[in-house]
Amino acid sequence: MHRTRVRVVEDALDANTTIAHANRADFDGHGVTVVNLMSAPGAGKTTLLEAVFRAGLGDVRPGVLEGDVQGSLDADRLGMLHVPVTQINTDGGFGGECHLDANMVRSALGEVPLDEIDLLIIENVGNLVCPAEFRVGEDAKAMVCSVTEGEDKPLKYPLMFRTCGLVVVNKIDLLPHLEYDIDKLLHNIRSVNPDAEVMQVSARTGEGVEGFRDWLVRVGDRAAAPA
Amino acid sequence: MHRTRVRVVEDALDANTTIAHANRADFDGHGVTVVNLMSAPGAGKTTLLEAVFRAGLGDVRPGVLEGDVQGSLDADRLGMLHVPVTQINTDGGFGGECHLDANMVRSALGEVPLDEIDLLIIENVGNLVCPAEFRVGEDAKAMVCSVTEGEDKPLKYPLMFRTCGLVVVNKIDLLPHLEYDIDKLLHNIRSVNPDAEVMQVSARTGEGVEGFRDWLVRVGDRAAAPA
Repeated sequence: MHRTRVRVVEDALDANTTIAHANRADFDGHGVTVVNLMSAPGAGKTTLLEAVFRAGLGDVRPGVLEGDVQGSLDADRLGMLHVPVTQINTDGGFGGECHLDANMVRSALGEVPLDEIDLLIIENVGNLVCPAEFRVGEDAKAMVCSVTEGEDKPLKYPLMFRTCGLVVVNKIDLLPHLEYDIDKLLHNIRSVNPDAEVMQVSARTGEGVEGFRDWLVRVGDRAAAPA
Repeated sequence: MHRTRVRVVEDALDANTTIAHANRADFDGHGVTVVNLMSAPGAGKTTLLEAVFRAGLGDVRPGVLEGDVQGSLDADRLGMLHVPVTQINTDGGFGGECHLDANMVRSALGEVPLDEIDLLIIENVGNLVCPAEFRVGEDAKAMVCSVTEGEDKPLKYPLMFRTCGLVVVNKIDLLPHLEYDIDKLLHNIRSVNPDAEVMQVSARTGEGVEGFRDWLVRVGDRAAAPA
């Protein structure tokens, strides 16, 4: 019985990989670069994207695929900034899943204007565990980590920190009001992912946001560049 | 194929319920009341428990079952307060699950000194989605919600807020430094769970913590009272 269960899990993962490759082929066919953006609930992904879209991404045309269990609060916020936003709700036929997988993303691709964008940012469901386990066909994984969450999160959720090439440390405007040792966080990030790029920002005040904007432009320009 | 998948999911849920009943019978047999404590990562569950254990729970003898994907950082913190703590790691044979289920709790019961405690607090994995879906044999579900997470969380994670009888709003010491409308949060909580008890606390400064302590004592005394 145990062996049967393992086999089923492996099949499921294989199916996800197969569909992720199909997504990848569609993105490549349209010259779209894809960033899978993850975080715990309330870490500030949407506020960070609002700040970036207000500043603008130069020639890179962004779009957003918004993942939530229910509702479209974040999509509504981003839609006001004249960025094409497509909502996926995981409770609509997907059992209220705590993450996006390749098949959910694929089910939404018909609604994403791939011909009109260069960079698709997939804002995943707020969760530090399962979103890290499912490839969706992205070029890069990035995460937002709020200083209000404590310095120990890389050690408690190592797969998430290990799988992301970029860690955006958000809400640094609150540091004077917290008992928080940012060097301890940076040490913990390095201990699970020595190669991660780390940025410190405040999406609310705008401090450091240009670094994330520039990172997105670099990623997006790979798509805009002639093949 | 779709019908097969649905059947498997239903079986899994039934198995969880069956095992949750078995856990419940064991807890009852030892006169132990059980609280399933949930939150997003970094909302302050452990800091809140530290504050409560330092204040003491009177005649109620607490114990903790600590759920994490990896590591024992929180268990180590609580163990220093001379409370019996048992660690469950979901990556040890449970595939790195993002929640505790009844079977994981059952697998740890042999390590929990049920004869020496009146109140078992199960500190679940930090996650606002899946922990709400799995009964583990608890008497009550409670959650911690940090004001740094934004006012919209009840609308984005309604099952979690709906399933909890108590919502502890934490980190209110940071309110002067946030753009946060606590009335909006309370409105959103009421919109998904009109019956929820709501407390406002700062686990760091101790403000309001006695309310959560008294709630735990009331819950625990049900167990200590003669049958």
